Amino acid sequence: MHPKKLLLLSILFLFITKTSFAQQQQLRVEPSFWWAGMKETKLQLLLHGKNIATLEPHIQYPGIKITDVIKVKSPNYLFINLDLKSAKPGKFEVQLKQGAKVAQLYKYELKQREANSEAREGFNSSDVMYLITPDRFANGNPKNDSMKGMADKLNRSDKAGRHGGDITGIINHLDYIDEMGFTTLWVNPVLENDQPDYSYHGYSITDFYKVDPRFGSNQEYVALSKHAKKRGLKLVMDMVLNHCGSEHWWMQDLPTENWLNFQGDYKQTSHNREAIQDPHAAAYDYKMHTQGWFVETMPDLNQENELMANYLIQNTIWWIEYADLSGIRMDTYSYPSPAFMSEWTRRVMQEYPNFNIVGEEWSLNPAIVSYWQRGKQNANGYTSYLPSLMDFPLQAALIASLKAEEGGWQSGWQQLYQMLANDFIYADPGNLVIFPDNHDMDRIFTQLNKDEALTKLAIAYTLTTRGIPQLYYGTEILMHNDVADDHGIIRTDFPGGWAGDKTNAFTRSGLTKAQQDMQLYTQKLLNWRKQAAVIHKGKLTHYAPEKGVYVYFRQYEGESVMVILNKNEIPVELELAKFLPQLNAATQGIDVISGQKFNLKESIILLPVKAPLILELKR
Amino acid sequence: MHPKKLLLLSILFLFITKTSFAQQQQLRVEPSFWWAGMKETKLQLLLHGKNIATLEPHIQYPGIKITDVIKVKSPNYLFINLDLKSAKPGKFEVQLKQGAKVAQLYKYELKQREANSEAREGFNSSDVMYLITPDRFANGNPKNDSMKGMADKLNRSDKAGRHGGDITGIINHLDYIDEMGFTTLWVNPVLENDQPDYSYHGYSITDFYKVDPRFGSNQEYVALSKHAKKRGLKLVMDMVLNHCGSEHWWMQDLPTENWLNFQGDYKQTSHNREAIQDPHAAAYDYKMHTQGWFVETMPDLNQENELMANYLIQNTIWWIEYADLSGIRMDTYSYPSPAFMSEWTRRVMQEYPNFNIVGEEWSLNPAIVSYWQRGKQNANGYTSYLPSLMDFPLQAALIASLKAEEGGWQSGWQQLYQMLANDFIYADPGNLVIFPDNHDMDRIFTQLNKDEALTKLAIAYTLTTRGIPQLYYGTEILMHNDVADDHGIIRTDFPGGWAGDKTNAFTRSGLTKAQQDMQLYTQKLLNWRKQAAVIHKGKLTHYAPEKGVYVYFRQYEGESVMVILNKNEIPVELELAKFLPQLNAATQGIDVISGQKFNLKESIILLPVKAPLILELKR
Repeated sequence: MHPKKLLLLSILFLFITKTSFAQQQQLRVEPSFWWAGMKETKLQLLLHGKNIATLEPHIQYPGIKITDVIKVKSPNYLFINLDLKSAKPGKFEVQLKQGAKVAQLYKYELKQREANSEAREGFNSSDVMYLITPDRFANGNPKNDSMKGMADKLNRSDKAGRHGGDITGIINHLDYIDEMGFTTLWVNPVLENDQPDYSYHGYSITDFYKVDPRFGSNQEYVALSKHAKKRGLKLVMDMVLNHCGSEHWWMQDLPTENWLNFQGDYKQTSHNREAIQDPHAAAYDYKMHTQGWFVETMPDLNQENELMANYLIQNTIWWIEYADLSGIRMDTYSYPSPAFMSEWTRRVMQEYPNFNIVGEEWSLNPAIVSYWQRGKQNANGYTSYLPSLMDFPLQAALIASLKAEEGGWQSGWQQLYQMLANDFIYADPGNLVIFPDNHDMDRIFTQLNKDEALTKLAIAYTLTTRGIPQLYYGTEILMHNDVADDHGIIRTDFPGGWAGDKTNAFTRSGLTKAQQDMQLYTQKLLNWRKQAAVIHKGKLTHYAPEKGVYVYFRQYEGESVMVILNKNEIPVELELAKFLPQLNAATQGIDVISGQKFNLKESIILLPVKAPLILELKR
Repeated sequence: MHPKKLLLLSILFLFITKTSFAQQQQLRVEPSFWWAGMKETKLQLLLHGKNIATLEPHIQYPGIKITDVIKVKSPNYLFINLDLKSAKPGKFEVQLKQGAKVAQLYKYELKQREANSEAREGFNSSDVMYLITPDRFANGNPKNDSMKGMADKLNRSDKAGRHGGDITGIINHLDYIDEMGFTTLWVNPVLENDQPDYSYHGYSITDFYKVDPRFGSNQEYVALSKHAKKRGLKLVMDMVLNHCGSEHWWMQDLPTENWLNFQGDYKQTSHNREAIQDPHAAAYDYKMHTQGWFVETMPDLNQENELMANYLIQNTIWWIEYADLSGIRMDTYSYPSPAFMSEWTRRVMQEYPNFNIVGEEWSLNPAIVSYWQRGKQNANGYTSYLPSLMDFPLQAALIASLKAEEGGWQSGWQQLYQMLANDFIYADPGNLVIFPDNHDMDRIFTQLNKDEALTKLAIAYTLTTRGIPQLYYGTEILMHNDVADDHGIIRTDFPGGWAGDKTNAFTRSGLTKAQQDMQLYTQKLLNWRKQAAVIHKGKLTHYAPEKGVYVYFRQYEGESVMVILNKNEIPVELELAKFLPQLNAATQGIDVISGQKFNLKESIILLPVKAPLILELKR
């Protein structure tokens, strides 16, 4: 793609001057362009302009047919159903006629798809995601910190305010991310959040087709994708289909009465997600969960309106194709209409069969999380096409196990062991995204009471067990939030991302010894993992933890790794006898971080105090 | 059946005197008799006698064929495989020949089955079980309190000793049980436990075919079944297939080297039941759970030995047929070989398609409990034929909810609501057995800190939600254990069961007001439930709890019941608006206990403080 061409095409407010219908009529067309050769050949255009419903659309282009024109309650919308079956890439006019006269026209383009667009590979278990809150990572372009015409100006002294981080800031530090050993970027939402305040987090979208100018432009987002790809880094877009921001452009002129849930009235969601699976659920609770709003400033979209459903599905596909995405992280997965989410995933996965999407279903119950994964046979017949979910149950069990007192007849690791054992209810546990923390919860270092050894154990576990690991920016330098559960503080600015920062984590200047140690540890482990097919694909076998020690193996095509997570604060010996079947005659284990060698011909090995060992096994 | 005939036939040590092989040779034959016309026409006899393996068995009886004779390591066993395909009821001799001479003989009988034996109906959701620990309920026959030749004599001052309760004691109080409104008896194991001490609980069986003389005889057990049946009470036998007692008769002369797990060496089970379902489990952990022993005095049976498997399956069928059982409670369901348990349930359910069996899998994880239920599609292909399980997850959630502080954005009832919502992972949640407590845990009144109102809420819930309720003897009179988790105290003697008891719960003499109140409440509710098809079969719809109030409905063929469980200690009003779809134009609700009428035409009703309401709805 040519960024300059895209620049022209992505101007969403087109001023059409040559019409008699309305001088300088503002016309919004979404999607503003499309591609030829998609699997799904139907396309529905949303046109928004004053009294546009009085006009009749016409298109003359080989292979394109208008199959239907839908008018809604607001006269300012037209929905045009197109069939593009045999259309080739090219440009054409959408003429809007009043009688015989062309009252308005819109120049539309069907673009040529990138080679291999359909076959694009999503993130997978060979990847490790680096999760970035873009306002808080690095300020690459101070000129866009505040924007004319937009409220919520730069205010770094407000933890809930905008701090100036942006897409250019991420691009500027791709080398750091790459050198650390991450392979995938998950960036929190970058689309326009033109809200009066508390807009930095990005989850109150006011334009689904436009990057927020304070983060950059659509072109800069594409540039991020390209620069990342050059380094072999994949880009995952954080999407929100459940709600929009209360300042979304359509809020002043809703197309239909059921565009929003509860007819636009604010009713708080109950968060009773169980009502979706529960055979005993009252319809009331199902409705309150799926149709209730998150907060008053986030109008809840009604995806059971087919026009809305089409709009959102096309928007997703547009971004994948436009920004060359390798994946999606879908916000609040169980809160939109479940039937819609099934159709949404089906359509996306139909266009990109090797793609990956990870849904956020923040339940600690694996029965509920597993319900949403592709391949699960659900009792109520619900079919999901969602390949991956965030493994919240495992995250909670990891923390609980690390914090548990040792002693008693069961090891503190038992909770983690038992939770992983629940993998039998997942259709594809290896494709779950695992994480020690994320942008919505206390920093892992905080959750573990600033215990460096436990934090290292958490990272070692996350990077060696099954699944696709994700680390939140700053975890590698022990970022923490001293006020519990305070999102503004959890999402503290990354040191070095702002001009004048005294500490610079990118250069390690000013980092404490503990921070440097953790950064180096994470870097070594990530770079080892990057090449370790045995971790990406290896069979996992774990042993019931005993006496504060949790041991598991990964095995793949003759390669074997033995992971030993020891929580004991005093030196302990590990008896090897019960591991013999997995050791499989190995005589030596070499720790991938320290290089230390362990003689496995002995009946015991002495474990380093409160630390992980990741041993490559040698015969 | 004729008890006198049975008496003769059930003498397990038969003295055969007319043989040249061994004067007064003790010959044990198990099963000691069988029935004609069973679905499974194969029968395997175990014969035990000195050097019996040197003899050749012969049977001359129309329709019976010896298909195989199996000799094992010990020369004192013979296993004879019979095919009974076309055999009619009758008696015949099993001749054991040395050359041409009959060295021993055993008179065998194939009995006539009771009419409708095959079609017998198991306990179901129209039933409520009364769980009795027979040593602790009522001493009907003081003559059998201690038995000559058996250790562990009567010692009521020892909480772990034998207290003298027996089968006759239960028979004597069937009127009480019936009048209370229970419909089913689950009696803890009654088979011989000829152990040196701590034998009263019955889980260390030393003879799988013989009732412990201190509880009575096989005939008395049959009499209990008959007396119960006359009153419409079903009998559920508590069975143990995982282990035997260390003084079991075969322990001195094991048939094979693999008759017991770990070749008879004591290895403690790990209790890591997850290893059965866990796709990542080490074979070591699977083995330690299923083959490890409960305690040293309970040798763990190896059901993967086919002779053992046959022995146990036949033993079960023998008891069902012999004692006219309506169900089985199977101890420690996940601890024997899972493949065996599948075959055991298959065989039993094949003989009695309408029977019911409830397994004890003491896990709080519904994913694990549901794995074992008939109809569940398991990822690893494991097929279970077990119709019911003890719903431990729901029990724990009930306690947690009742004990939870109210306040905060979620009601304390949330845990119970969320746990019941997990029913989507069960193949048949309506057939689970639900209970506030049992013989292995603190008394419900103790668990709820002796709070009478909470205990009443627990009973109301148990008797009105889905499933088959079970109450432990004494729950109705607020029995408690002031030393936590002390089995001997949990299983305290039921007052009135022993001559000279100052308090008599059967006659209500000496009961406190609170005890009388609870007994009456339980009785009223049980007797109402007995007739309430709406509870037995009604669709359950529950609403997410709010502000300390949990509401659900049962609906069946036009009947509706609204259950309101209110934990608040101050008067609260319940808004009816959200319940309108379930109220379905009802104008009045009548509490089934108090008869109090509630006007449902109002928008709110005032709830009694910290109490259940069970309202029959009227239009």
